[in-house]
Amino acid sequence: MSQKLSGACIIAQSGGPTAVINSSIYGAMTAAFESDCITGVYGAMHGIVGVINNDLIDLCQEDPEELALLPYTPSAALGSCRYKMEDPDVDDTDYKKILGVFRHLNVRYFFYNGGNDSMDTCEKLERYFKKAGYECRIIGIPKTIDNDLCCSDHCPGYGSAAKYIATAMTEIYKDTVVYDVGTITIVEIMGRNAGWLTAASSLARLNDPECGPDLIYLPEVVFDFENFLNDVQRRYINDKNVLIAVSEGVTDKDGKLISQYSINRSDCSDAFGHVQLGGLASVLASFVKARTKAKVRGIELSLLQRCASHCASKTDIDEAFSAGRVAVESAINGESGKMVAFERNYINGRYVCGTVLVPFRAVANAEKKLPLEWIAASGNNVTREFFDYALPLIQGEPERRLENSLPRYTKLKKIPVK
Amino acid sequence: MSQKLSGACIIAQSGGPTAVINSSIYGAMTAAFESDCITGVYGAMHGIVGVINNDLIDLCQEDPEELALLPYTPSAALGSCRYKMEDPDVDDTDYKKILGVFRHLNVRYFFYNGGNDSMDTCEKLERYFKKAGYECRIIGIPKTIDNDLCCSDHCPGYGSAAKYIATAMTEIYKDTVVYDVGTITIVEIMGRNAGWLTAASSLARLNDPECGPDLIYLPEVVFDFENFLNDVQRRYINDKNVLIAVSEGVTDKDGKLISQYSINRSDCSDAFGHVQLGGLASVLASFVKARTKAKVRGIELSLLQRCASHCASKTDIDEAFSAGRVAVESAINGESGKMVAFERNYINGRYVCGTVLVPFRAVANAEKKLPLEWIAASGNNVTREFFDYALPLIQGEPERRLENSLPRYTKLKKIPVK
Repeated sequence: MSQKLSGACIIAQSGGPTAVINSSIYGAMTAAFESDCITGVYGAMHGIVGVINNDLIDLCQEDPEELALLPYTPSAALGSCRYKMEDPDVDDTDYKKILGVFRHLNVRYFFYNGGNDSMDTCEKLERYFKKAGYECRIIGIPKTIDNDLCCSDHCPGYGSAAKYIATAMTEIYKDTVVYDVGTITIVEIMGRNAGWLTAASSLARLNDPECGPDLIYLPEVVFDFENFLNDVQRRYINDKNVLIAVSEGVTDKDGKLISQYSINRSDCSDAFGHVQLGGLASVLASFVKARTKAKVRGIELSLLQRCASHCASKTDIDEAFSAGRVAVESAINGESGKMVAFERNYINGRYVCGTVLVPFRAVANAEKKLPLEWIAASGNNVTREFFDYALPLIQGEPERRLENSLPRYTKLKKIPVK
Repeated sequence: MSQKLSGACIIAQSGGPTAVINSSIYGAMTAAFESDCITGVYGAMHGIVGVINNDLIDLCQEDPEELALLPYTPSAALGSCRYKMEDPDVDDTDYKKILGVFRHLNVRYFFYNGGNDSMDTCEKLERYFKKAGYECRIIGIPKTIDNDLCCSDHCPGYGSAAKYIATAMTEIYKDTVVYDVGTITIVEIMGRNAGWLTAASSLARLNDPECGPDLIYLPEVVFDFENFLNDVQRRYINDKNVLIAVSEGVTDKDGKLISQYSINRSDCSDAFGHVQLGGLASVLASFVKARTKAKVRGIELSLLQRCASHCASKTDIDEAFSAGRVAVESAINGESGKMVAFERNYINGRYVCGTVLVPFRAVANAEKKLPLEWIAASGNNVTREFFDYALPLIQGEPERRLENSLPRYTKLKKIPVK
């Protein structure tokens, strides 16, 4: 047991939102409120940027009933950022500001709820504090719908996104087969480098093998345009209706994004030189239409897949909560420099999720892809192993609070820390 | 009380699917099963096309437990069609085939579940049968997410679509405000000529006035590009994050669809000369980006808004069921040539939905638009009257059947009628 460290804590959120990231900070808060080591519980607005700018709110002054809605409130209640910290050995400007804020409020615990970039931030901050001789325990709380964090069986946020994608695919399937004229529907799913989310579309087949996508294209497999068009055309001729799930990040053999294949697309390469992902579904739709002469529709699941708390997985919400709690409890027990990760166990055949701590360095800036052995030899489908992996993660319905039959989310007072 | 008419019935579905259209046919079926006048209950596959082609299934042979899942199964379980019938006085080819099928099976009741085009079909069929001296009672069961049927306070399917749109908008709002860099998000919603669905995005503000769309553009109001860009820019400068709801059908003062404004868009006007709706969000996004230099995202709610049974309104499901039952009961009681319509009442301030029968001619090929007095003077918002109208329609959560925490829909055996 480590020495007792008394001081305040800061909780912050970073990266793209999820349906359950707020469950994690609620877990962290409840553990912090209970602890007699932690003298103040602060939230930084917009991640590390809020720490740098001393934009902090006092979470102890929030209404407990409002906080209790956090697990069912999508997106990041404290706001988020995409801010790449400099290496402290190169430029310590931001770090000095952070240290100033920490010293001023006697902050001795920092909990950062984010993905691999956020763990990179944590690692640098930990390094700087050590060098500066400032005692502070830093624990990362994992978060990403992409499910691509290394050293963790899965990530909070993935189960809910996977459940939404599977549910939406059952509904889209039902809609697309309604006419007997034949249609080809292409659904674009998030995931730049890892196919976890797109693979989840296959879960739509669980309750009815006919329902769900006929073809699945993942970024782990080189996208061959000719093979793709042949696959689609064959299915169209045989089955009339074809439903295709494709990851936004699929690339050709030269690594070029397929979403950039079409030219003269006003929404793809804009006047300012940015190339945005997205729009892949309509690129593919135009190629498929030219080949098959079929009625073709492109659908982009867009933001809904990462923030659909109305379709969240209770398992995911509970695990996200637990990751937040474990982060705080571990720090109180002396841990630092680590991220909470998930470990999968089966007890009497029943899925049980445990937690372990992994060093920031093992997670930062790395990505875990879908195992190649879970991808069918055809390259356009997943295997049974993926089902077995994903199924436990989407289980259970959350007890959402509704008013007027619409979601009632947390409202924070956001009282600044003085 | 009309003379008792003994014979079989055919139930069919037509037009775009909804989340609750199957609840209507379930209502019709249960009433037909209970009736001692109705000697057989058949479903036509793909609407009137299935009748013409004698593609009928015997609904009495379906498993009652599977049928009981119909109210929670999205899209049209019997398949749908978009088939415009000729006037029987001009060309009666199809009608002769239909009459042959009806005579062969002694079909004396026909229930058509669809929108204004379907009521046009019903009207023509009724006229033909009368001329041919074939006694058959025809009742229409309303259906459309667009909510644009005349003579009915609202339409089955609208409440669930409105609820999905409102729920999705709360989630999209939460997602878009997460960063502090400022974003403009444009959400494209269905509705070619009537703004009912797009107006429903405003319901996202019910539980939190800050949440939901800042600007709403409806097809009832001429879309002025300069006003639009000024509105958006002003909001962007003042509020940083801007959420916009826009109907796919907005047009300029000359009636030109705004979705056709951009040139060189491969997914808009295709190689075969078809111009598809959709893609408006990305057209607007490119214009807004050029004006504001902001981060802009276009989102199309697409098919999900009409088939999201996981977010359906129980009120809508129950009313759709009741419309189906009333159709059958009315026909048994001697009615024909009419569509079931909804009438709104308030008893002790509580919303109650009643049914009335309206002639096909009053509904066929007509559209009911959003009342202009429910649109704010700014032209980019709705008034409180719309809230009062829509709120009762989205109430209640359905008791969906889940397996593996994913929807379990009706599976029909579809045994052909001999």
